[in-house]
Amino acid sequence: MRLTHGLRLALGALLALLCAGQLAAQPVEDGYDLWLRYRPLASAVQTRLLPRATELVVAGDSPTMRIAAAELERGFSNMLGHPLPRATAIGRDGAILLGTPAGSPEIARLGLPLARLGPEGFLIRSMPVNGRTTTVIAANSDVGLLYGAFRLLREVETGAPTERLDIAEAPKVKLRLLNHWDNLDRTVERGYAGFSLWDWHKLPDYLDPRYTDYARANASIGINGTVLTNVNANADILTPAYLEKVKALAAVFRPYGIRVYLTARFSAPLEIGGLKTADPLDPAVRAWWKAKADEIYRVVPDFGGFLVKANSEGQPGPQDYKRSHADGANMLADAVKPHGGIVMWRAFVYAAENVEDRAKQAYSEFKPLDGTFRDNVVVQVKNGAIDFQPREPFHPLFGAMPKTPLMMEFQITKEYLGFATHLAYLGSAWEEVLKADTYAKGKGSTVAKVIDGRLHGYRMTGMAGVANIGTDRNWSGSHFDQANWYAFGRLAWDPELSSRTIAEEWARMTFSTDPKFVRPAVGMMMASHQAVVDYMTPLGLHHLMATGHHYGPGPWVGDLERPDWNPTYYHRADANGIGFDRTKTGSDAVAQYAPEVARSFADPNRIPEKDLLWFHHLPWDTKMASGRPLWDELVLRYGRGVGTVGEMRATWDGLRPYVDARRFDDVASFLAIQHKEAAWWRDASVAYFQSVSGRPLPEGAPPPPHDLEWYKALQFKYAPGHH
Amino acid sequence: MRLTHGLRLALGALLALLCAGQLAAQPVEDGYDLWLRYRPLASAVQTRLLPRATELVVAGDSPTMRIAAAELERGFSNMLGHPLPRATAIGRDGAILLGTPAGSPEIARLGLPLARLGPEGFLIRSMPVNGRTTTVIAANSDVGLLYGAFRLLREVETGAPTERLDIAEAPKVKLRLLNHWDNLDRTVERGYAGFSLWDWHKLPDYLDPRYTDYARANASIGINGTVLTNVNANADILTPAYLEKVKALAAVFRPYGIRVYLTARFSAPLEIGGLKTADPLDPAVRAWWKAKADEIYRVVPDFGGFLVKANSEGQPGPQDYKRSHADGANMLADAVKPHGGIVMWRAFVYAAENVEDRAKQAYSEFKPLDGTFRDNVVVQVKNGAIDFQPREPFHPLFGAMPKTPLMMEFQITKEYLGFATHLAYLGSAWEEVLKADTYAKGKGSTVAKVIDGRLHGYRMTGMAGVANIGTDRNWSGSHFDQANWYAFGRLAWDPELSSRTIAEEWARMTFSTDPKFVRPAVGMMMASHQAVVDYMTPLGLHHLMATGHHYGPGPWVGDLERPDWNPTYYHRADANGIGFDRTKTGSDAVAQYAPEVARSFADPNRIPEKDLLWFHHLPWDTKMASGRPLWDELVLRYGRGVGTVGEMRATWDGLRPYVDARRFDDVASFLAIQHKEAAWWRDASVAYFQSVSGRPLPEGAPPPPHDLEWYKALQFKYAPGHH
Repeated sequence: MRLTHGLRLALGALLALLCAGQLAAQPVEDGYDLWLRYRPLASAVQTRLLPRATELVVAGDSPTMRIAAAELERGFSNMLGHPLPRATAIGRDGAILLGTPAGSPEIARLGLPLARLGPEGFLIRSMPVNGRTTTVIAANSDVGLLYGAFRLLREVETGAPTERLDIAEAPKVKLRLLNHWDNLDRTVERGYAGFSLWDWHKLPDYLDPRYTDYARANASIGINGTVLTNVNANADILTPAYLEKVKALAAVFRPYGIRVYLTARFSAPLEIGGLKTADPLDPAVRAWWKAKADEIYRVVPDFGGFLVKANSEGQPGPQDYKRSHADGANMLADAVKPHGGIVMWRAFVYAAENVEDRAKQAYSEFKPLDGTFRDNVVVQVKNGAIDFQPREPFHPLFGAMPKTPLMMEFQITKEYLGFATHLAYLGSAWEEVLKADTYAKGKGSTVAKVIDGRLHGYRMTGMAGVANIGTDRNWSGSHFDQANWYAFGRLAWDPELSSRTIAEEWARMTFSTDPKFVRPAVGMMMASHQAVVDYMTPLGLHHLMATGHHYGPGPWVGDLERPDWNPTYYHRADANGIGFDRTKTGSDAVAQYAPEVARSFADPNRIPEKDLLWFHHLPWDTKMASGRPLWDELVLRYGRGVGTVGEMRATWDGLRPYVDARRFDDVASFLAIQHKEAAWWRDASVAYFQSVSGRPLPEGAPPPPHDLEWYKALQFKYAPGHH
Repeated sequence: MRLTHGLRLALGALLALLCAGQLAAQPVEDGYDLWLRYRPLASAVQTRLLPRATELVVAGDSPTMRIAAAELERGFSNMLGHPLPRATAIGRDGAILLGTPAGSPEIARLGLPLARLGPEGFLIRSMPVNGRTTTVIAANSDVGLLYGAFRLLREVETGAPTERLDIAEAPKVKLRLLNHWDNLDRTVERGYAGFSLWDWHKLPDYLDPRYTDYARANASIGINGTVLTNVNANADILTPAYLEKVKALAAVFRPYGIRVYLTARFSAPLEIGGLKTADPLDPAVRAWWKAKADEIYRVVPDFGGFLVKANSEGQPGPQDYKRSHADGANMLADAVKPHGGIVMWRAFVYAAENVEDRAKQAYSEFKPLDGTFRDNVVVQVKNGAIDFQPREPFHPLFGAMPKTPLMMEFQITKEYLGFATHLAYLGSAWEEVLKADTYAKGKGSTVAKVIDGRLHGYRMTGMAGVANIGTDRNWSGSHFDQANWYAFGRLAWDPELSSRTIAEEWARMTFSTDPKFVRPAVGMMMASHQAVVDYMTPLGLHHLMATGHHYGPGPWVGDLERPDWNPTYYHRADANGIGFDRTKTGSDAVAQYAPEVARSFADPNRIPEKDLLWFHHLPWDTKMASGRPLWDELVLRYGRGVGTVGEMRATWDGLRPYVDARRFDDVASFLAIQHKEAAWWRDASVAYFQSVSGRPLPEGAPPPPHDLEWYKALQFKYAPGHH
């Protein structure tokens, strides 16, 4: 037996080696496989791991368990170059045993400490079972087993040892959701990776296999819900023909632990209901939504609920009828409540007629409503008070609504961060927000603790990410943008994870476990967000992009209909200085933060330089930490960003030996584009701000190669994602 | 030596076998590889072919020759499971020798009869060279070699013997072009396969590897030009920033023998030129186009020329200035003439204010212009006089313009044929048109002979196909729609090829050479076009689709702004009968055909039933060839179409053993959709026509399951391809 086994191993290794060669080339690495590539491990690693993966015992049966088992088989057989045979009972050392106590007496007998792991957690433990060394994956639910299977595979794929595993994990956030800003015509608002995955025209009859691969990828990082439609909503998604299509998608996603949600257009009762009003206090309107919810749940019994953007950027809402956001949210909440549904109500509101500092409006609107929402309403708050700028201070609502569950909304798609071609790892940006201290209950009241519910004891916790996923072969438009999808899922699972750790995991799985690759690649990733901030909006500047499509610089724009759409509204640069005074001499937005935070933000000597011009209007010759005047510092920061991109290119060039040709070339091309566009941002911005400040460039700063008019004349009518 | 060789063969075969198994699975067949799959042949076939592919000798060097050589290596090594080694000179039996007489003395010495093969033809011959059995691929140009390489690979992939090859081929048509109706925002008008391939935003800096794969696929079927942009044109493509992007694409396509062309928006001088007029006789306008052409050729020295849709469906044109189509075409022709460029001027015109039968307008407009065009103008004529309907009689212009080169425009994308999900092989539809006899110079004056130039001795010949290619993984939106791309290329190469032969080639390469697959699959394909005609527009009916997106039936539509946009304009059904009288008692469109053709079309007893209602308005009780009254025949034809689709489904179900799971399932899902939608077309059409005719359904015809109002109420606001 042992000899045969050894022989099989040897032959397997030989074949894997041969097959990897000329005759049966590995599939081209085009990015489709994401971080789930399962390529053959180094033979020494295979040899070490094989004795821990001799057979797979699945104790029970369900669609989800079948998926988990198939994933383990696929992963282990590809990575180890050796099949992982199924067995009905543990028959040898090295088995992998998968099951729940409820579904398997064998698992129940092990007496594992699963109680604290809740409905989605799992436990992976190396332990003897029936006298055989075994790797046990146990959970309270089938989806927990699926998460555990992916976790074990991640250990293997990242090259971790598997001899003495003892992992117990449960997600710290309940709702871990993607928000797709996908339209019914398959265009994607702010999407840079092709069309929407949802092929509505062919649904429900054709189920693109990609729907399954999408669910699999999300399950592998713990995402458990997806809002299929754009927040700039279309009522047609709620009509019977479309609900049949939604049902078909829900059926694909269900065994992966993923629920579907839809955006609810507040005026749907008028548009598809034949009513004369959408007033949330009108009985007919309430009855219509109730009937609509009943209809939806008949079609999709585990429908998650609604996401709503109301009274913001032209979307209809309760204020059209002089009702409050709470009135609107609660009406919808009442409709879905009998079915266990929820309503996610967005706090991203600012009104055309409101002259208050846009950064203050969400707080002003929602803070007074704290405690007035139904218990199945969550208020979804963007990370910052403006709109996913390259960098924003944390949103003042975090910590300010103890009686209302707030969920985080991050933007995975890079609307303001260079679209698909710029390498900007957002894990570090999100970590910065999550680690920010609100001081809501004294020091240590981080945003992460607001989001995971510990700070205020929220009934419901959640994190949403605006998806960067489309029909592009590599899903996200670029290989490195996959890292943002990955990082979002990991941070939604545990908001206190280190973004560097996440980047390392991702790089190991997506490219190579070779430290000579991992260290420089992760270095690039960790430097990338600051680079983008530097070459677009350094020192707390924000909202300086071109109009509409948001591609490229437009700091000179000051003629748009609404003041708060204009870059000049935000930077307020003139001959004397630059920045938005949000202290009490200005809009006093600082007062929306806890006193400790407000004091720090209000003091130009205490505030971190990264947020300086967000809160302060300062003279050009203000002395900075570097000893340089603000003007010089600003110009040099722009240059520093471009310089970092240059260094990223050099780093990547050195990584050629570790990366397949296709992906290497793709990334190299994109970095070249980023380098060119970073310089464009710098040059256009410096040309403009110099036209305002009238100051000479500091030593070492290259003068813009064109005059300001040249930059202002550039047009990009067909920039993607602008629908 | 022989032993070693034998051993290598044996080991190679063993490895191929093993590698094809569990450990290194063949890539998933998702359709990306088109007809160039090069999967391993049956081992008996490999054994037979191997002695004819022992080494590859490339006599010369150029980018195109390198592509040809790489293709041969890739194809032979994958199909034979054995590498095809390169050699610098023929050293053994079984060599493949590739070269031109101009580039290689060795080829020149062979004295091959290449003179008649022109610049794009090739010769493949099994013959001794230096005393060794050799397969020679020779041509007068490098691109001829590339075509020859693909031809040899096709022989192998279709399972043909290669011992005694003697193939000499040259394309019968000069311009073999795809027309992409692709917009600059990447939407595709009438495209059902995702976004446009052209990622303008990332061009010219990022060259998607798919551009190369696109060029390769086209070269494999002899396509030698591509019009990148929509005929509903956008002047911005002619601006410097976009020309840089066009240049980058042209560089990718050039070594594949493919030139790029652009659509010229006639009003471009106003829109991007700052002129006050686009009058083609205005000197400033003429100078602007001349300068623009000079600019384009500086950027793309082998630019092919312009395609123009003018004064049609709202497009600007010379008639806006009271000038003729010839005035417009000739102005552009003069601009590109010094650079060797051409102008393709579309004859697809019909005017809002013209009350003449739309079917007559193109002829009325262009026939009088015959002989007035510059010698670098080609008039591009759709196959029929209306607009790519499921079936149309051949366009009366064919044969009617002996002094003006006419090129054919076919629509590969299925705007009126069920979009991507309906299986409709168009090879047979196109063959029907190409074989139609114009009688322009007596019997045998087929459309094919007009197009290939033999009939009138055209200086220039061409065939254009409106592409069905997009970002979908399988390129065309469905696996079987790839056959239409393939068939277009093959018919452009030789307009007299049999569509059945083409279908067989394609099926063998794309799926399987097993006769148990090929015969039924080709049977389905050959029946498919008639099936669509039957369930949509039988017996010569046309233009009965829903408004705008053209998805689904809309025979009841009669309220659109222009009469000739309304289905009721075309079918003219009332209580007494149905059909468009185009004889001399009606619009007399028959008079636009040669007398022999006109007499046949004008006589309801001589005209083929397939065209009957195109030319005749007939009472419902007209006795048909079947002996049944017209009403009964019409209803039964609708049913026959649905029945054929049912048979296609059954046939496909029986082909499961021969097709990989992914593509089998994809096709089966689409056939189910087609079956459902065919029944919908039948039921809605029968419900409507019955409401007009007031007649009972013939025996055996199922009554529509819904009333007419139900069908009329269906809406498809987001149907794809409608931009």
